[in-house]
Amino acid sequence: MVNSLVRHRILPWRRAFSSTTPRRLIKPISELPDRTKPAYLQRPQNQLLSLQWPSPPRNILITKKKRTPGITDSLIEYSQHLHSTYPAINIILEPTSAAEVHERVPFPVYTYTEPPSDSLSPEHLGEKTDLVCTLGGDGTILRASSLFAHSALVPPILSFAMGTIGFLGEWKFKEYKRAFREVYMSGSRDAYEKLESPDPELETSSAPLDEVDKYSTAPLDATTTTTTPPLTYSSIRGKSLGSSRPARILLRNRLRVGVFMPDGTRINSGHSDTYALNEVIVHRGSSPHLKIISVYVGNRFLTEAVADGMIISSPTGSTAYSLSSGGSIVHPLVPSLLLTPICPRSLSFRPLVLPANTPITLRLGEKNRGREVEVSIDGKRISDGIGVGMEVRVLGERVRNSAKEWCGGVPSIVRGVVGMEEREEDHWVGGLNALLKFNYPFGDQDKDERG
Amino acid sequence: MVNSLVRHRILPWRRAFSSTTPRRLIKPISELPDRTKPAYLQRPQNQLLSLQWPSPPRNILITKKKRTPGITDSLIEYSQHLHSTYPAINIILEPTSAAEVHERVPFPVYTYTEPPSDSLSPEHLGEKTDLVCTLGGDGTILRASSLFAHSALVPPILSFAMGTIGFLGEWKFKEYKRAFREVYMSGSRDAYEKLESPDPELETSSAPLDEVDKYSTAPLDATTTTTTPPLTYSSIRGKSLGSSRPARILLRNRLRVGVFMPDGTRINSGHSDTYALNEVIVHRGSSPHLKIISVYVGNRFLTEAVADGMIISSPTGSTAYSLSSGGSIVHPLVPSLLLTPICPRSLSFRPLVLPANTPITLRLGEKNRGREVEVSIDGKRISDGIGVGMEVRVLGERVRNSAKEWCGGVPSIVRGVVGMEEREEDHWVGGLNALLKFNYPFGDQDKDERG
Amino acid sequence: MVNSLVRHRILPWRRAFSSTTPRRLIKPISELPDRTKPAYLQRPQNQLLSLQWPSPPRNILITKKKRTPGITDSLIEYSQHLHSTYPAINIILEPTSAAEVHERVPFPVYTYTEPPSDSLSPEHLGEKTDLVCTLGGDGTILRASSLFAHSALVPPILSFAMGTIGFLGEWKFKEYKRAFREVYMSGSRDAYEKLESPDPELETSSAPLDEVDKYSTAPLDATTTTTTPPLTYSSIRGKSLGSSRPARILLRNRLRVGVFMPDGTRINSGHSDTYALNEVIVHRGSSPHLKIISVYVGNRFLTEAVADGMIISSPTGSTAYSLSSGGSIVHPLVPSLLLTPICPRSLSFRPLVLPANTPITLRLGEKNRGREVEVSIDGKRISDGIGVGMEVRVLGERVRNSAKEWCGGVPSIVRGVVGMEEREEDHWVGGLNALLKFNYPFGDQDKDERG
Amino acid sequence: MVNSLVRHRILPWRRAFSSTTPRRLIKPISELPDRTKPAYLQRPQNQLLSLQWPSPPRNILITKKKRTPGITDSLIEYSQHLHSTYPAINIILEPTSAAEVHERVPFPVYTYTEPPSDSLSPEHLGEKTDLVCTLGGDGTILRASSLFAHSALVPPILSFAMGTIGFLGEWKFKEYKRAFREVYMSGSRDAYEKLESPDPELETSSAPLDEVDKYSTAPLDATTTTTTPPLTYSSIRGKSLGSSRPARILLRNRLRVGVFMPDGTRINSGHSDTYALNEVIVHRGSSPHLKIISVYVGNRFLTEAVADGMIISSPTGSTAYSLSSGGSIVHPLVPSLLLTPICPRSLSFRPLVLPANTPITLRLGEKNRGREVEVSIDGKRISDGIGVGMEVRVLGERVRNSAKEWCGGVPSIVRGVVGMEEREEDHWVGGLNALLKFNYPFGDQDKDERG
Ligand SMILES: NC(=O)C1=CN([C@@H]2O[C@H](COP(=O)(O)OP(=O)(O)OC[C@H]3O[C@@H](n4cnc5c(N)ncnc54)[C@H](O)[C@@H]3O)[C@@H](O)[C@H]2O)C=CC1
Ligand SMILES: NC(=O)C1=CN([C@@H]2O[C@H](COP(=O)(O)OP(=O)(O)OC[C@H]3O[C@@H](n4cnc5c(N)ncnc54)[C@H](O)[C@@H]3O)[C@@H](O)[C@H]2O)C=CC1
Ligand SMILES: NC(=O)C1=CN([C@@H]2O[C@H](COP(=O)(O)OP(=O)(O)OC[C@H]3O[C@@H](n4cnc5c(N)ncnc54)[C@H](O)[C@@H]3O)[C@@H](O)[C@H]2O)C=CC1
Ligand SMILES: NC(=O)C1=CN([C@@H]2O[C@H](COP(=O)(O)OP(=O)(O)OC[C@H]3O[C@@H](n4cnc5c(N)ncnc54)[C@H](O)[C@@H]3O)[C@@H](O)[C@H]2O)C=CC1
Repeated sequence: MVNSLVRHRILPWRRAFSSTTPRRLIKPISELPDRTKPAYLQRPQNQLLSLQWPSPPRNILITKKKRTPGITDSLIEYSQHLHSTYPAINIILEPTSAAEVHERVPFPVYTYTEPPSDSLSPEHLGEKTDLVCTLGGDGTILRASSLFAHSALVPPILSFAMGTIGFLGEWKFKEYKRAFREVYMSGSRDAYEKLESPDPELETSSAPLDEVDKYSTAPLDATTTTTTPPLTYSSIRGKSLGSSRPARILLRNRLRVGVFMPDGTRINSGHSDTYALNEVIVHRGSSPHLKIISVYVGNRFLTEAVADGMIISSPTGSTAYSLSSGGSIVHPLVPSLLLTPICPRSLSFRPLVLPANTPITLRLGEKNRGREVEVSIDGKRISDGIGVGMEVRVLGERVRNSAKEWCGGVPSIVRGVVGMEEREEDHWVGGLNALLKFNYPFGDQDKDERG
Repeated sequence: MVNSLVRHRILPWRRAFSSTTPRRLIKPISELPDRTKPAYLQRPQNQLLSLQWPSPPRNILITKKKRTPGITDSLIEYSQHLHSTYPAINIILEPTSAAEVHERVPFPVYTYTEPPSDSLSPEHLGEKTDLVCTLGGDGTILRASSLFAHSALVPPILSFAMGTIGFLGEWKFKEYKRAFREVYMSGSRDAYEKLESPDPELETSSAPLDEVDKYSTAPLDATTTTTTPPLTYSSIRGKSLGSSRPARILLRNRLRVGVFMPDGTRINSGHSDTYALNEVIVHRGSSPHLKIISVYVGNRFLTEAVADGMIISSPTGSTAYSLSSGGSIVHPLVPSLLLTPICPRSLSFRPLVLPANTPITLRLGEKNRGREVEVSIDGKRISDGIGVGMEVRVLGERVRNSAKEWCGGVPSIVRGVVGMEEREEDHWVGGLNALLKFNYPFGDQDKDERG
Repeated sequence: MVNSLVRHRILPWRRAFSSTTPRRLIKPISELPDRTKPAYLQRPQNQLLSLQWPSPPRNILITKKKRTPGITDSLIEYSQHLHSTYPAINIILEPTSAAEVHERVPFPVYTYTEPPSDSLSPEHLGEKTDLVCTLGGDGTILRASSLFAHSALVPPILSFAMGTIGFLGEWKFKEYKRAFREVYMSGSRDAYEKLESPDPELETSSAPLDEVDKYSTAPLDATTTTTTPPLTYSSIRGKSLGSSRPARILLRNRLRVGVFMPDGTRINSGHSDTYALNEVIVHRGSSPHLKIISVYVGNRFLTEAVADGMIISSPTGSTAYSLSSGGSIVHPLVPSLLLTPICPRSLSFRPLVLPANTPITLRLGEKNRGREVEVSIDGKRISDGIGVGMEVRVLGERVRNSAKEWCGGVPSIVRGVVGMEEREEDHWVGGLNALLKFNYPFGDQDKDERG
Repeated sequence: MVNSLVRHRILPWRRAFSSTTPRRLIKPISELPDRTKPAYLQRPQNQLLSLQWPSPPRNILITKKKRTPGITDSLIEYSQHLHSTYPAINIILEPTSAAEVHERVPFPVYTYTEPPSDSLSPEHLGEKTDLVCTLGGDGTILRASSLFAHSALVPPILSFAMGTIGFLGEWKFKEYKRAFREVYMSGSRDAYEKLESPDPELETSSAPLDEVDKYSTAPLDATTTTTTPPLTYSSIRGKSLGSSRPARILLRNRLRVGVFMPDGTRINSGHSDTYALNEVIVHRGSSPHLKIISVYVGNRFLTEAVADGMIISSPTGSTAYSLSSGGSIVHPLVPSLLLTPICPRSLSFRPLVLPANTPITLRLGEKNRGREVEVSIDGKRISDGIGVGMEVRVLGERVRNSAKEWCGGVPSIVRGVVGMEEREEDHWVGGLNALLKFNYPFGDQDKDERG
């Protein structure tokens, strides 16, 4: 039996996980089969990509928002659904979630050890995760994405909003069955054929999703994870799968960020660049005085910002901190970097939008009073002791390799509305209106209480 | 009988008014008794003033929004109510309204001749009008105020919103009976005593307002308008008046605007300064090129604006065009002028807020291409042919004379909510939130359709 | 003799040109040999392209600023230099310049007939012009570019600033000899080899440019313009050419703009889309009232702008009107469109930056008061009578064809500083600082007169 | 001898001051005669006030910028000049300056003990200081003003810019002799008469200021500071004083700020309100997350700011942090308070300008993550431990008492240019242009290096 074998093997290690009930185990992700990497196909006349799995995804990381009542129940409900509907699937949880949940579910959960403080990315996570599901808001997505802050190839992310809808998230939790299935099936021949010749009828039939047939999978040989034969859609071909269509992917470019000490060594040393989904900021932090930050664009001096701080943002981050600081809203598909000052003292410092492949450097010069400065990536402060002489170097991530294949970026699964697939492009526009209250009109005739 | 006397006297003139039914007359406002000027009393710890009539108002000007279905019916309903409830009241209408309405009401209406095109203010209107009521939105209030664009002492304005609530207007039309009564009674002993010692009980009793007793008035001797003995509240003292309290006035400072030709003559010659409630603008108008406008503050050169145009705004106008051009929102009680550029080419031209008593001049210098420029006051273009060498000179209106009495300004009657008088200060704050969607929050959890 | 032949042929047409002195002729551009189309080569690690002529350019259009004293002398000086140094070159002038200048130069000039008012592009100009030189500011460049407003392939533009340096122009007039030679030689083997293996030594030698040897060219057979054998660099190979290097090209994307009547017919009918270098705007023009403009992005409704107007701008135009209206500064190499409102009444309408291949439509709905609206392209009003129901449809120009060759756009020749070629990327950054006073610092210690 | 008497008396105390040379003493300010309070006279048609000393000022506090090379030499030079030219004058220095300087000057200097950390204002300083002179920039003025953060009546401030000219400072250091004399004499009969009947001739005569005659003063009886007969101008009347004119005062309104713990106790307990010259801010400080701040205006809820923080600023502070955060520039004589958000997440939060007498409260509600928040007054963080439940309450300072006398505010001595007194109003406008680069024009023709 798989579980007992595993239990046997990882005994010394297992103690790190407070597993008391043998059957409800926490296991290390190193035992999982290696990750299944999807392809992203360009769709005709469409800026979104189509997700195509070579074989069904198996290792699913689920993260949840912190400090939110009821969220653990949702996590359990979701995990149970995955486990019972897609028995081959393995559930990966963050260590705290795993500890909290593993006794309440009738199957083992996988987890990793927290990375050391000078790193964001837990070991192995990048090599094992097929798909990430987040339950929460934008902050949860940012945190999930930060788990892959040192990986070039982030798994696709399927985000469920819990309560408040965020700007990055797309799906409502109550849709989780349909949503997961759409993603799971994306790339089966069925789904694929639909890409070539869409059949409108299928779309609307949309059989009760709960009744999707279960399919058996090849037995998982835990001792030799690397040789595990992958699941294939063909093995489940005979079954009636109901309708499906490829999941659509918005590939969000990230920033590659390096933070350097005056002597040229990296902060968070030993690591390569960190990827940021929203932005990196340099800020006065708790000092009440202006900072003086030299800005280099394309390796040449552009200007000296005297300000609270500076933001270098991706287009995705254009609706986050940069927007609050007066930046424009940039569509996530415009290959660009934003350079937005925070409370600049000059009257004439306007936000800049630069080509994504332009290197930008921020340098904290000697003129600055006080030593410490705040450097944050996606809303997370990076370690202390950063001061005069420090440099932040940024470059936009490349999302196409030399073979013109899509790679890199954060593959975000975009929600469509059944029967309105042609409108799918507009998720972003919808977000502007619904969430940012973009161009919200004056003078509402319905409102008549002004006392 | 009053009407026949009048008819007799004004025969030659009357023809100007298309009156066919003898009983349903249009009469000239010159026949009205002279205006009753209210006092405005400072209220302890309060920035709003209390309206106090020395005797009940009699001559009521009612203006209505243009091109709005159903509005004429509302005008008639309102006029009928005034006539039947307060028989001594005379209704003044704009010429077009008078023509439209006079056959549908069983009492004469008064009107004036349209002023010549080089003037905004109809003759006599300033001397005859006790109170202005507007049915419409902000545009209607601006138009009503422009009828007094050459009068230092504008009558109080009671504004009813029809449909869309505006920012300047305060009252809902369905409240018109209570609203008018509050204004009408403001200054009777009753109201007055309340000012000294407010009796909370009276506030809440608020007897059915429809049942206010009618009172007779001294007969109106039409032949000698100036000697008409004024109505007195004492003559109606014996009657049960129900509760009342003083109407609260927000005195909105205006701008004094003079537009001058290069040779120093006034445009709209023969006239003194024009008062503006919102703003005066100089703008490129239909020319597709930038204008170069020299700005003088306190009679000294400040800067040269290269821009679409310039706005000089009152605090009241700070929520109008100036806001759209990036100006701050200034509370109407801050004695100030705003200088806001429209699309300035300089990156560092920020809106200025200057003391109300600082003279500001805009001058269209010789460098400008094209001759014509748009000059508008409160959304009304002033006559053509204004070009290079032209000057706009502005000063804030003084609203207190040397005896420290309140005078000048546009006395706007502020709406309170029965039982929430202590909150009355907040009408402006309420407007910010309800109408401007000021600080409208992100991320609405109720909205869950984002397709 | 060429001239007499030509004169013969074009007799009826020639009268249109007020040529009285036979030797100083104005000739029609139809007589010119067909245009030589350059290639643009991608340079390693560089966003600028290299200009490569298959054979030396011959037909040079020179435009000049209007209403500027001394500019005609500069035009003559420049033309004389071209004619005497590069005898095979033909000078094309705008009709008014041609009339003004042809008697003062000892060689014929070519011109075209003014296009009819419903078109911007003169006939044949696009097929005959090898290179455009502008003497003036940004306005002159915009005007030159508008001569190719219906051409997909604009010739390279070499812009000389006269007096005030503009933002789009690059070169100082006093550099004209070096500048022209750099462009002219760009693509000779010499220049070409340098591209492959740059020889730093050559760069610094920079022989006196005036002493460049003249070279003879193949005789121009005027009767058969299409068969004229092109000039070749090899024919001038034997001569000492001094150093050279390829001219660098910034390919500025334009907008494709279509303006449509409510019935779907095009304004400026009979024509295809108009290309805009900066922007297209819809504006209230001379009406003092707000306009209500529906905005569609990607063929779906985005929002309704209640504003003075809307701008759809290219990245090049991001430093023009859009900047004055609060838009961000977008680098010309970011493939994008800007959607910037002009004085929007909503507090929450932020400028948007969208992918260049997103179609945008502005529609003037029925709610608008007044009929007329201003539609301008690159600062030029398009014909009147545009009102309610009108639509402006915009798409970003494609600058790479399916074979991934560069095409389209306005190829702007970027100025480098001798000996600082490595810094060439920074012309744009330099412009920000020098021209826009971008991030101009507070508190100048040198300034000490503040009276 | 005064010094020895004093030395005797303060022996135990003196040790706190590292005085080793008996003749070069540091003495406590408690020994100084009480302060001389000037009057401020309204000048006809002028918004600046005239300074009038009842008797010449004697106790002069001089503060200097920190960490600036050469500044101590300037301080010594200035002190020496005051001491030798006006022998009756006593020099007060900050403790560190006193320690640094007292051995280098041949006269005693006075100082105070540093206030305890929960207070800004040193004891006695408010009762003893006649005049403050600052050597430095805006930061030095802010620090000087903060020494009187608990005094209603701040002494006049004469500010000398050292190096960079600041926005609040007015005078160049090289003018110090003329400047001080102008202030010192302001209110002598001579100066006074000029106020009534200005004699233009005197203005231009402007005798060499260095040659002003010294005058003897009544002997200073150190043992009984309170009974010291004041210096009178009449005692120096016989001497030739040269021309003089009253110093002009800009009375800068401050904010009254109270910071309260959730339990209603004051932070910096035991103290009354703190006065701020620029602003008070609440800011996320070193937390990387948004703060949620409830804003109450006029004791009623206005809105909830989700932002980096909030600024409540005086008009003086409108050119400081508030400007960087997008606030308008408000003239210091507009009686108002500014409410400016720092990086608000809502797209529609615009800066507000409110009447100076409107109470504003900021409250840090329970929803906030993290406990600590930054609260700073005029760029100085106030003590730690401020978090959820905290409230900042602000009211504009009254600068006229019930007798309509000017009082309160920071009386800033405005610089005039000799011979241009009529332009004096414009110091502020001058500052806008020179310092803020307000409306700095595009496209400088002089600049022609853009390489
Ligand atoms: N309020 C504003 O900022 C307005 C701007 N414009 C701009 O003017 C352009 C037409 O130019 P002209 O005929 O010379 O009109 P103009 O005489 O109104 O001058 C426009 C100004 O914009 C500058 N400019 C033009 N294109 C630019 C660019 N791409 N980047 C930076 N600066 C640029 C020019 O140097 C000139 O200073 C239009 O395309 C529009 O962008 C037109 C009207 C108003
Ligand atoms: N881009 C813009 O924001 C423009 C604004 N205007 C403003 O319109 C005013 C004229 O009004 P209409 O004739 O009705 O023209 P309109 O039909 O152009 O409407 C102007 C809008 O401004 C609102 N408004 C007017 N005064 C206001 C105030 N003091 N505070 C807040 N909102 C206010 C009205 O409710 C209406 O929604 C002008 O005084 C000017 O301030 C005029 C042209 C352009
Ligand atoms: N992002 C920003 O703009 C920030 C501004 N500040 C401002 O700095 C002030 C404290 O000054 P320092 O201790 O010298 O700090 P600092 O070293 O951070 O310098 C503040 C700068 O603001 C200028 N300044 C101060 N008051 C001014 C005024 N009323 N008008 C125009 N410019 C003014 C000073 O000349 C200096 O250049 C605070 O009161 C706050 O207003 C503080 C932090 C950030
Ligand atoms: N003044 C501001 O606007 C500040 C913004 N932030 C942003 O917060 C992010 C971190 O998020 P949390 O940890 O949840 O911090 P948080 O609790 O401070 O919330 C940030 C808010 O930004 C929203 N958000 C995040 N990314 C977004 C995006 N790409 N587009 C639109 N909205 C977005 C979230 O929904 C949330 O409402 C940072 O990456 C930074 O962009 C952080 C500090 C201040």
